[in-house]
Amino acid sequence: MAFLQQRLSAILALLLICAAGNVAAAASDDPLPSWNEGRSKDAIIEFVHRVADESSPEFVPVEDRIATFDNDGTLWCEQPMYFQLAFALDRVKAMAPDHPEWKTQQPFKGVLEGDMKTVMAGGEKSLLQIIAVTHSGMTTDEFANIVSEWIGTAKHPKTGQRYQDMVYQPMLELLAYLRSNGFKTFIVSGGGIEFMRPWTAAVYGIPPEQVVGSSIKTEFQMRDGLPVIVRLPEVNFIDDKVGKPVGINQHIGRRPLLAGGNSDGDLQMLQYTTIPRNPDDATPRLGLIVHHTDAEREFSYDRKSSIGKLDKALDEAPMRGWIVIDMQKDWASIFPAGRD
Amino acid sequence: MAFLQQRLSAILALLLICAAGNVAAAASDDPLPSWNEGRSKDAIIEFVHRVADESSPEFVPVEDRIATFDNDGTLWCEQPMYFQLAFALDRVKAMAPDHPEWKTQQPFKGVLEGDMKTVMAGGEKSLLQIIAVTHSGMTTDEFANIVSEWIGTAKHPKTGQRYQDMVYQPMLELLAYLRSNGFKTFIVSGGGIEFMRPWTAAVYGIPPEQVVGSSIKTEFQMRDGLPVIVRLPEVNFIDDKVGKPVGINQHIGRRPLLAGGNSDGDLQMLQYTTIPRNPDDATPRLGLIVHHTDAEREFSYDRKSSIGKLDKALDEAPMRGWIVIDMQKDWASIFPAGRD
Repeated sequence: MAFLQQRLSAILALLLICAAGNVAAAASDDPLPSWNEGRSKDAIIEFVHRVADESSPEFVPVEDRIATFDNDGTLWCEQPMYFQLAFALDRVKAMAPDHPEWKTQQPFKGVLEGDMKTVMAGGEKSLLQIIAVTHSGMTTDEFANIVSEWIGTAKHPKTGQRYQDMVYQPMLELLAYLRSNGFKTFIVSGGGIEFMRPWTAAVYGIPPEQVVGSSIKTEFQMRDGLPVIVRLPEVNFIDDKVGKPVGINQHIGRRPLLAGGNSDGDLQMLQYTTIPRNPDDATPRLGLIVHHTDAEREFSYDRKSSIGKLDKALDEAPMRGWIVIDMQKDWASIFPAGRD
Repeated sequence: MAFLQQRLSAILALLLICAAGNVAAAASDDPLPSWNEGRSKDAIIEFVHRVADESSPEFVPVEDRIATFDNDGTLWCEQPMYFQLAFALDRVKAMAPDHPEWKTQQPFKGVLEGDMKTVMAGGEKSLLQIIAVTHSGMTTDEFANIVSEWIGTAKHPKTGQRYQDMVYQPMLELLAYLRSNGFKTFIVSGGGIEFMRPWTAAVYGIPPEQVVGSSIKTEFQMRDGLPVIVRLPEVNFIDDKVGKPVGINQHIGRRPLLAGGNSDGDLQMLQYTTIPRNPDDATPRLGLIVHHTDAEREFSYDRKSSIGKLDKALDEAPMRGWIVIDMQKDWASIFPAGRD
C-alpha cells in the first residue's frame, strides 16, 4: 500500500508541476514581444484569433490558413540597395580574375572600380548584364553553394552586420506566431527564387518549397552521366506587381488569408488577398504594409524612394483596411538580439 | 484512502487499455494492405525504414523527405485516353450551344459527332485548338468550378465509374504510408496544374501547393474593382520529360528522396531523383515504375502504347535499381472499395 501511495504521490506531483508550468507560460505569453502595444499589434492578434480559434464564428480550417510575405523591405532590409544586387556586385569582383576583359568593359569596369554612378547610368541594360553573368551559366547546385557562401560571410556596408542578420525581429516573431496558429507561411518576393531558397529555412523557418520569386529559365541536362539543372541567361518569370498574384496562383494555388508587403510592388498581392469577391465573402483577410519610418534605427523612405517605393499602396491602405505598420512606433526592436 | 485507491485504479486501468490498444494495432498494422507480399512491397517498406527510423544509419531529416509522383497512369488510370482529354471533349459538347460555327468546323465538328478518327487525324494542332477553347478565356476561379463539377459527375466510358474513383488503391496507401513517415508528397504531372488542384486534396490528400503540372499563361486583372486571374490561350510550361526535373526545381527547390512514375515521360524525374551525384552521395533514393500488366482488372500496355509509353525507362530500370511494380502480381486490388 505504501508503494501505491508513493506512486500516486509521484503522479500527482507531476500533474501539479505541469499545471504550474502552464500557468507560468500563460503569464509571460506575449507572442509578439518586439511589437509595442498599439493598433498594429492588436489588429494582428485579433485577426489570428478570429480565424484560428475554434470557437470563433469566422474560424478558418487550418489548410486554408495561407500567409504570404514579400521579402525585401518586409522581412529583411533593402537599403541602400537590394541585397541581391550587392551579391551580384560581389560576384563580379570575385569572378574578375577570370574575366580580364572587364577591366575595360562597362558596366563591369564601373563595378570593379567602385564607380556605381557609371554603372547606374547604364540603366536596366547594365543591371541585366550584371545579373546574367553572375546568376547564370552554372548548375542550380553550384549557384546554391555560391549563395550560401556569400550569405554566411558578406557584410552590410552601413551596419557591418551579415545581411542574413538584418532581418526584422518583429517579423520573425510574426512568422512564428502565425505558424503556431496553423498558418503555412510563404515568401512571395520580386527577388530571385534561387537566391532566397538556400537560406530561408534557417533564417525565417520557411522551407524552399514555400518560396516564390522571380526566376530565370533552366534546363535539364545529363553531364557525364550525372543529371544537372543549368541556369540560362534568360528571364523566366518576374514575381513583382501584377506578377505576384500570378506567382501565388502558380505556386500555391489558393488565395492567402494574410499578405504582408512594404511597397507598390506588393499592391496587387494585397488586393488579390484582401478584396472580397462578392457580398457573401465574409472570410476575414488581413493586409499588412511595413512602413519604413525609422531613419535612426533603420531607414526612412516611402513615396519618392527608388527602392521600395510606397505610394499607391499607402493611398489605398485606409480604404482597404490594410494595417500600415509604423516601424518607429510599432516596433520595440528592429533587428534580432539587441543589435539596434 | 479508498478515494485515492479508486483514482489510482482508474489511472492504471487507463494505462492498461492504452497498452492493449497499441498491441492490437501493432498486430494488424500492415501499412500497404492492397500490396501483395513480394519484392516491390518489401523494397518500399525497407526504404522507408532506412530513411525514417531514427536508429537507421541512413536516417534522413524529416524536412528532406520529399516524394514526387506522376499522376496519369501512376496515381490514376490514363486509358483509353488521358482523363483531361475526356474533360476537354466533354467541355466542347457543353460549350457547343454557344458556338454554332463548330457544327461545320474541325476539329470541333468531329468531337460533336463522336468522330474521334477525324479529330486525331488533325494531330497536335487539333488537340491544342481543343485545349485552348476549353481551358482558357475564363478566370482561374471559374475554371476551378468547371473542373470540380466535371470531376464530381463525369463517368469513365469502360467502367462507368467516376474518373476520380479510378485512382489506384495501392498508391493511395503508399501516399498515406509515406506521409505517416514524415514525407511531404507532391504530384509532378504532365497534366494541367489547374486541372488537378481542385480535387487532389480530397482524392489523394495532396494540397494545391504540392501539385506541379503543365500550365498556360495567366494574367492578373482588376475587373469591376475585383481582382481576378485570367487564363490565356498560350502555353507557359510543359511539365513532362526534361520538364519534370525543371518543374521540381521550380516548385519544390530540392531533390526528392523518392519518385514514382509509369512512362518515359517520367524518365528524367527518375534519373534526377535517384542517380548519385558523387561517390560520397550515399543517401538512399527510391525510383518506382508502375507497369501496366493487368489487362483484366485495368489495362495492359508499355513499349508500344501511344499513351503512357514505357520503353526507355523500362530498359534503364534494372541498371538504376528502380522498382518495377507489376500491377497484376503486386497489387491485390487496383481500385478502391472492391470495385475490380
